[in-house]
Amino acid sequence: MFEKIKIDEKEYVRITRDELFRIVKEIFVALGITENEASIVADSLIYADLRGIESHGVQRLKMYVDGIKAGGINTEPNIITVRESPVYALLDGDQAMGQIAGYRATKMAINKARENGIAVVGVKNSNHYGTAGYYALKMAEEDLIGISMTTSSPLVSHTGAMERFIGTNPIAMGVPVEGEKPFLLDMATSVVPSGKIEMAQRKKERVPEGWAISTVNGKMITDPNEILSPKGAILPLGGLGEIFGGHKGYGLGVMVDILSGILVGATWSKHVAGAKEKNSNVGHFFMAINPAAFGDIEEFKNNVKKMREELRNSRKHPKFERIWTHGEKGFLTEETRLKIGIPIHRTVYEEINQIANELGVKSLS
Amino acid sequence: MFEKIKIDEKEYVRITRDELFRIVKEIFVALGITENEASIVADSLIYADLRGIESHGVQRLKMYVDGIKAGGINTEPNIITVRESPVYALLDGDQAMGQIAGYRATKMAINKARENGIAVVGVKNSNHYGTAGYYALKMAEEDLIGISMTTSSPLVSHTGAMERFIGTNPIAMGVPVEGEKPFLLDMATSVVPSGKIEMAQRKKERVPEGWAISTVNGKMITDPNEILSPKGAILPLGGLGEIFGGHKGYGLGVMVDILSGILVGATWSKHVAGAKEKNSNVGHFFMAINPAAFGDIEEFKNNVKKMREELRNSRKHPKFERIWTHGEKGFLTEETRLKIGIPIHRTVYEEINQIANELGVKSLS
Repeated sequence: MFEKIKIDEKEYVRITRDELFRIVKEIFVALGITENEASIVADSLIYADLRGIESHGVQRLKMYVDGIKAGGINTEPNIITVRESPVYALLDGDQAMGQIAGYRATKMAINKARENGIAVVGVKNSNHYGTAGYYALKMAEEDLIGISMTTSSPLVSHTGAMERFIGTNPIAMGVPVEGEKPFLLDMATSVVPSGKIEMAQRKKERVPEGWAISTVNGKMITDPNEILSPKGAILPLGGLGEIFGGHKGYGLGVMVDILSGILVGATWSKHVAGAKEKNSNVGHFFMAINPAAFGDIEEFKNNVKKMREELRNSRKHPKFERIWTHGEKGFLTEETRLKIGIPIHRTVYEEINQIANELGVKSLS
Repeated sequence: MFEKIKIDEKEYVRITRDELFRIVKEIFVALGITENEASIVADSLIYADLRGIESHGVQRLKMYVDGIKAGGINTEPNIITVRESPVYALLDGDQAMGQIAGYRATKMAINKARENGIAVVGVKNSNHYGTAGYYALKMAEEDLIGISMTTSSPLVSHTGAMERFIGTNPIAMGVPVEGEKPFLLDMATSVVPSGKIEMAQRKKERVPEGWAISTVNGKMITDPNEILSPKGAILPLGGLGEIFGGHKGYGLGVMVDILSGILVGATWSKHVAGAKEKNSNVGHFFMAINPAAFGDIEEFKNNVKKMREELRNSRKHPKFERIWTHGEKGFLTEETRLKIGIPIHRTVYEEINQIANELGVKSLS
């Protein structure tokens, strides 16, 4: 049974999807969020854990809970549509959890693109919305090409600079494929997402040289503690300087800041604050394109399937075991975890139970 | 006076923009293209030379001329609109030069987005359209966010593979900025565009390890002749494997193939043929977003300017002289070259004159 990341079973506890969903949902309900909205947030977090994106799963529960307790996240939001046309909309997220406005915006993009071929929906005044791929996948499941981007708090040092300026600003794209799970790209525009560095930190391992620099002297650093402190910054995709295209990762990060930040009236890059802050003003950008507007939907899905098969069946490089296409590892991991449970790190397990106890929610069984 | 690339004046001849435009336009007219269309193509090629993208400038003239002579490029196209709505359109490029349908599609995207907030225009049955940035800039000059992508012939080996499969598939984005030239990102989704390798070939220099692999044994190769032969392939942005994010560059390349290839009914990646082939069926994707639909256009442009200034004024890394933002180097190079002329490599200079002579067009003066 395939899992994206090798799990050391001694360090993890396996929890069923339903039990994890139950506790996360009940925790958010106990914090004052409606049943319906708590379900959306729980589904989004568990989606990440199911697919092996541990950094964006229930490990982040505490961040959200602390954000709510500190008043940085509004549990009784009045999310309003500020502007709307048949093909676009702008929502004010009223400082709710990003997943709530994100989900609503995705639904709007789906309906508009089904009706009118293409749609863009932006969200301002929001918070961290989980993984970008969650929303892109929702659109792909409706036979649309779905694109999702979000601003995020500054962690990346752009080309020529030596400070945390841009966020890891992800881009996700989901595409329907005939007879298969969607093609699903979900990437930070930095060389690695911060989650990979957090994982090295937990394992007390160093990270490869080329992922991050010191913000003090600009040298490459490999100690995850230093990288995750204000003394470190992650490099953009392509690395330091321009030789291997670091200016491209930098440019993609700026693109995300412009589309999901400035365009939608949210803030950008170094001004994006964390979940505990009021007015962190995170912004999101969702776009849906209906292939049926441009041609036959079955032909489109068949051609994507054909391309995917060609990618898989290309001549293999001797150093690699297999050629993957985007989304496959995540779906296989999900399959496994739906069967044998989602691995939750023991420290996260304790943390969840502690949060539950404080709120009078039944512990994980 | 700034130029993006240091020019060895002994190897180059400087030609004024107007004289270069004159000869390129006359060559295309002599080959049977209308005055108006020849002007568009000449403008697009010289745009690249002005901005220091030598690989996509008049150096490519021979490729286009050979494509026309071989019958791969249709000089009397009937470009038709296959599908259209107020926010999208699909054009059949009728195997014309890519610039012609590209220009028309860009104008349509501009008009639709001005009217209805957003627009997507696709082109199928096209050919090489020059630089992606040319079209994105046109949209930005109309106070729109402009996005442009195109398929291209296979040169890039995707993660885990050892063959030329994906094109260098560029993504460009232009964004209007208050009181300044637009922000302009124009990037191949490979670690480098093929042009950089062609330049090393001409200078008889090796390229850095990490740009390309052998398609025979998968090892890193640095000899431009080998890389540009079928025995070589360029790596995706992020390099070999997943450690530095090579799967992200690979994913972006696939994204471009899906949007500008499969979606618009063109072919994709390894099926994209060169300019000499009939039915090379290159596809393009243009998108325009009107910031005025989402908020106040002046506020948008001011915020982009603010972000740009913040990027420039970030703490500088000691190894770099200056922090650039996207588009600046190109515009400064253009300024210089409009004053002192566009440097044309002597071999290209001879080539252009030879083409001109054969067609009865007056040589470069």
